[in-house]
Amino acid sequence: MDMLSWTCPAPLRHQPRVVMGHGGGGAMSAELVDHIFAPAFGGEVLAQLGDAAAVTLGGTRLAFSTDSYVVRPLFFPGGSIGDLAVNGTVNDLAMSGARAAYLSCAFILEEGVEMPVLARVAEAIGAAARAAGVEVATGDTKVVESGHGDGIYVNTAGIGLIPAGVDLRPQRVVPGDVVIVSGAIGAHGVAVMSVREGLEFEAEIESDSAPLGGLVAAMLAVTPDLHVLRDPTRGGLAASLNEIAAAARVGVVVRERAVPVPPAVANACSVLGLDPMYVANEGKLVAFVPPEHADAVLAAMRAHPLGAGAVVIGEAVADHPGTVVARTGLGGTRVVDLPVGEQLPRIC
Amino acid sequence: MDMLSWTCPAPLRHQPRVVMGHGGGGAMSAELVDHIFAPAFGGEVLAQLGDAAAVTLGGTRLAFSTDSYVVRPLFFPGGSIGDLAVNGTVNDLAMSGARAAYLSCAFILEEGVEMPVLARVAEAIGAAARAAGVEVATGDTKVVESGHGDGIYVNTAGIGLIPAGVDLRPQRVVPGDVVIVSGAIGAHGVAVMSVREGLEFEAEIESDSAPLGGLVAAMLAVTPDLHVLRDPTRGGLAASLNEIAAAARVGVVVRERAVPVPPAVANACSVLGLDPMYVANEGKLVAFVPPEHADAVLAAMRAHPLGAGAVVIGEAVADHPGTVVARTGLGGTRVVDLPVGEQLPRIC
Repeated sequence: MDMLSWTCPAPLRHQPRVVMGHGGGGAMSAELVDHIFAPAFGGEVLAQLGDAAAVTLGGTRLAFSTDSYVVRPLFFPGGSIGDLAVNGTVNDLAMSGARAAYLSCAFILEEGVEMPVLARVAEAIGAAARAAGVEVATGDTKVVESGHGDGIYVNTAGIGLIPAGVDLRPQRVVPGDVVIVSGAIGAHGVAVMSVREGLEFEAEIESDSAPLGGLVAAMLAVTPDLHVLRDPTRGGLAASLNEIAAAARVGVVVRERAVPVPPAVANACSVLGLDPMYVANEGKLVAFVPPEHADAVLAAMRAHPLGAGAVVIGEAVADHPGTVVARTGLGGTRVVDLPVGEQLPRIC
Repeated sequence: MDMLSWTCPAPLRHQPRVVMGHGGGGAMSAELVDHIFAPAFGGEVLAQLGDAAAVTLGGTRLAFSTDSYVVRPLFFPGGSIGDLAVNGTVNDLAMSGARAAYLSCAFILEEGVEMPVLARVAEAIGAAARAAGVEVATGDTKVVESGHGDGIYVNTAGIGLIPAGVDLRPQRVVPGDVVIVSGAIGAHGVAVMSVREGLEFEAEIESDSAPLGGLVAAMLAVTPDLHVLRDPTRGGLAASLNEIAAAARVGVVVRERAVPVPPAVANACSVLGLDPMYVANEGKLVAFVPPEHADAVLAAMRAHPLGAGAVVIGEAVADHPGTVVARTGLGGTRVVDLPVGEQLPRIC
């Protein structure tokens, strides 16, 4: 194929080059998938890219997922690139209902990284893997010249069994489903941004980085009939709710006052000019649950340490399919859009 | 953990910082695994890091492997980072006897990459996946600022079924095993280096990048009782033979004149100051086969398009365990060491 005569199968509307926003997990990332990756890789994968894939191998149903981690700085209050690399992929698998069993771990190291820093990241990966009950089974290391990396980039992929009878996907969401969030939002993004910007707040805000496989297992023990789970990472709760609304062709109504935002996070967000709905979380999930199971699932979540702050924040509705609406405290409503680009670059 | 007071569990002997050689797949890479990653991640994984892991999930035996690809330039005679990213991981799985079923694909993009270049890489991934009969099932995209990447880095992880009765690992190698290589060596490394260095040779040398799952299946159809397979990528045939000799505690004797090196590759190697035994291949394998099966396996390889040039190059011996020795054309012998650092940086 001659590079000069080659043209995009469906050129991106806005950008002749990759910009930071294409990595933000919002509308620009979706455009990259829809116009570049999905046509190149084939149709089957279209609906799966960006989430854990459910695949069948030897008669066994597996969840399979990957993420690269480029967070800056490598260490921040409450975590590091190491535990993010474990928890992020463990959580992607958990959103399929799967307990992560094995991870791969691949490093792209920049020449000159101090060996103790690398060792400290490796230690964090090992500790997080043990905490999540997952084994690092295979790995790879590449080194690039100084000026072609940023210290340490980590990729993990993970596999885990999907329990029988569990079928979590946005297409199963129907009007009337209850929307539950597992706890307070916004801590991860604010923790990373505050250290990056050198800001100090009255109370130090720590990342919520945590593995959600146990919480999901506790929820599935109530009923396998949950409809969809998402961990609201890049793009925050707003991105997760919009993706679900679009894929399920339902509207979503959120009671703004019900969304738990710690005062310290709300304060930091106002200083940083951020909306907590768009800030990344690394230890939270949002669930769409049939109303007949909502009370029992909520109780099971609250009985788990990582779901102690679980609350109902809204519901799926038949009106305005594909659109997320927030009811404000004053009785008004506003549309909660899918973020376009990247509010917080390199947050995970 | 306080970063300043923290020290390596087992400090690397030679380097306080990461250098290019740690990514070369030789002794320095092994040291990183032994002293940093294996102690941090836990003992189970020690013997598996760097190769496909064999894991059992839901009663199913799977091969699971990952590699990041940082090859420079992105396009070279005979291939690109896109088909390397597919074939490299497909071949790692094939060395466990597994046919790759699903791949993950994660990009770390540098801000400013031209969209048609990204699309061309994605097209190459899709085409290589179709050729290998593997599906890209899940993915991720991150973007880093200009000066913190090098255009496009790709990570793939892969999973595939290990057929019943197949148990390929160096520990099964015994003295008397016949060493077979599937064809001529050295083309990939020379192809990449020649374009990088702007060298032109009489005949253009193309990378041998190819998926080996079909060739391995043809070999296993003869007998599941092959002992070990390796694809000699970074560090070349010398690294693969040394790793097997060390893990199997056998000696390996190679007849130097039997190792197939195309004249164009030999010529380029002498210009570039390279030893073909240490040059990366991306579409070749080396097999240790019980002598009673060697003729039939060799015939099956030669009947396959990717094994047409298969030849016996030596055998495993009880003498000098852990050491690879080449018999030269003049009747002498020389030790073929494990490469220490990196002869050809960023070759895959």
